[in-house]
Amino acid sequence: MHTDQQLGSVVQQFFQAVPHCRILGMKPEHASSEGVVVSMPFNEELEANPGSGIIHSGAITTLMDSAFGIVACISLPDFETCPTIDLRIDHLACPEPFKPIRCFAEAYRVTKTVVFTRGVAYQDDREQPFAHGVGTFMRTGRTVSDMAKELAK
Amino acid sequence: MHTDQQLGSVVQQFFQAVPHCRILGMKPEHASSEGVVVSMPFNEELEANPGSGIIHSGAITTLMDSAFGIVACISLPDFETCPTIDLRIDHLACPEPFKPIRCFAEAYRVTKTVVFTRGVAYQDDREQPFAHGVGTFMRTGRTVSDMAKELAK
Amino acid sequence: MHTDQQLGSVVQQFFQAVPHCRILGMKPEHASSEGVVVSMPFNEELEANPGSGIIHSGAITTLMDSAFGIVACISLPDFETCPTIDLRIDHLACPEPFKPIRCFAEAYRVTKTVVFTRGVAYQDDREQPFAHGVGTFMRTGRTVSDMAKELAK
Amino acid sequence: MHTDQQLGSVVQQFFQAVPHCRILGMKPEHASSEGVVVSMPFNEELEANPGSGIIHSGAITTLMDSAFGIVACISLPDFETCPTIDLRIDHLACPEPFKPIRCFAEAYRVTKTVVFTRGVAYQDDREQPFAHGVGTFMRTGRTVSDMAKELAK
Repeated sequence: MHTDQQLGSVVQQFFQAVPHCRILGMKPEHASSEGVVVSMPFNEELEANPGSGIIHSGAITTLMDSAFGIVACISLPDFETCPTIDLRIDHLACPEPFKPIRCFAEAYRVTKTVVFTRGVAYQDDREQPFAHGVGTFMRTGRTVSDMAKELAK
Repeated sequence: MHTDQQLGSVVQQFFQAVPHCRILGMKPEHASSEGVVVSMPFNEELEANPGSGIIHSGAITTLMDSAFGIVACISLPDFETCPTIDLRIDHLACPEPFKPIRCFAEAYRVTKTVVFTRGVAYQDDREQPFAHGVGTFMRTGRTVSDMAKELAK
Repeated sequence: MHTDQQLGSVVQQFFQAVPHCRILGMKPEHASSEGVVVSMPFNEELEANPGSGIIHSGAITTLMDSAFGIVACISLPDFETCPTIDLRIDHLACPEPFKPIRCFAEAYRVTKTVVFTRGVAYQDDREQPFAHGVGTFMRTGRTVSDMAKELAK
Repeated sequence: MHTDQQLGSVVQQFFQAVPHCRILGMKPEHASSEGVVVSMPFNEELEANPGSGIIHSGAITTLMDSAFGIVACISLPDFETCPTIDLRIDHLACPEPFKPIRCFAEAYRVTKTVVFTRGVAYQDDREQPFAHGVGTFMRTGRTVSDMAKELAK
């Protein structure tokens, strides 16, 4: 078992390293064995319609996909990188305009080959989500440090 | 029934108008009553890992969500805007690095309240997709021109 | 708001009325505004492999589809019948052989046109599910009593 | 590569062996490297509402789950048994009452660990489906003959 501090450190590094997450402004707010919370600020480049202040459903999905992927990774003893097998997002409501959004993600089942994840996107209150997601991620046996080394070559 | 030219014109306007699609560089390549094809160039800001050339699964999903949403819209006589109800993406393989990606999307069933869509993401050959998606979109009764007028206020 | 007794009575009638649920032996165990629990006994006719004692994934899905459908119905003021729009089931593990299974279902979001549901299938402990599901159901405006009257004609 | 006759024989044995499929009356109609077609007759025990003639969405899903599972199996060189990881069904319309239904299923992508499948449920014309599905199945390395031997013990 890892400490919350170790988990937090892996999550922090992940969001600093992944260019697409960094560009979208994603920031981890919390990481523990219970799950992670990642936030994304509002930004005009994320808008679905100009001036509407509404974040595009695709950007919401990208936040959820990223949070689900990292929570799958830290649910495994050796922090394996886990590509998405499949992901389903339900859009329950429109988020409030011009406000940051958050995703809570948890890995609720780990098998030999697959990690099952789920979570919600919300703004102020996790009990009032505007999106709900489930996703499966593949175990690769390749750890995040392996990957960092390969990319550094 | 609309001509392919009318459909192409609505699709073109959509991708020029939506900030998040424009920022990601999405370009419609084809639109007809059979479906649409939208491309997205490779760009370092879309990378899953720095220097890998691999586009983040979230950006792939955003492309597919956008292509599915516009094909739902143009499947309706009055071009209603259709927010995503739910979307599922299956990631069949990793796309080739440093290359543009494309999405083919079709609305394969229209009911009074829901439009059912599906499609694939690929690079050179639509028969060799690296991702597969299905999504449901809600009919709103609000047309794209209504929306444009509201936003112009 | 309905009392738990009213909800229980509608749920009871539903499972007595639906031939396919009755044949599979489904029995409601609990109904409240929080959700429903429906059980299904093991039976050789439900087996995936002869003599294995393992219930077929399709029968698990049918239990979940039915529990999700009734919970969508009782989440609405007038008990509208709600056909399934789409349903996703994740199979986390194999259930234990020769034992009854249960489904907990909740309607976690109601909109003007769609009810969003989710739940789990388990045996003894809801915290140890072997399957997880999400589904969307369509509001029809047709109540269960309307339907009963039509079918009685 | 297997001949269509070999594939047909495995599919035939599967539907004779699986108790739940047999009870529901499923019959393979076609099997080739392109995919399988499985039919299920109407039967009052499958009804969603008594006397309606409409087959319950759960029974439709069970047919699709079974057809997807066998097509995953025969897509693999050694006919491995493949349990469902996750399955999504979209219900596009209500099937016509009192009539048999069919499912066409294909395995459209095979990876080292997962088989991706999709298909449709229809009555007379595969181009007019009333349901659409996608599912992922897990490779187990266990062949159908291994399984038959284990169960025979």
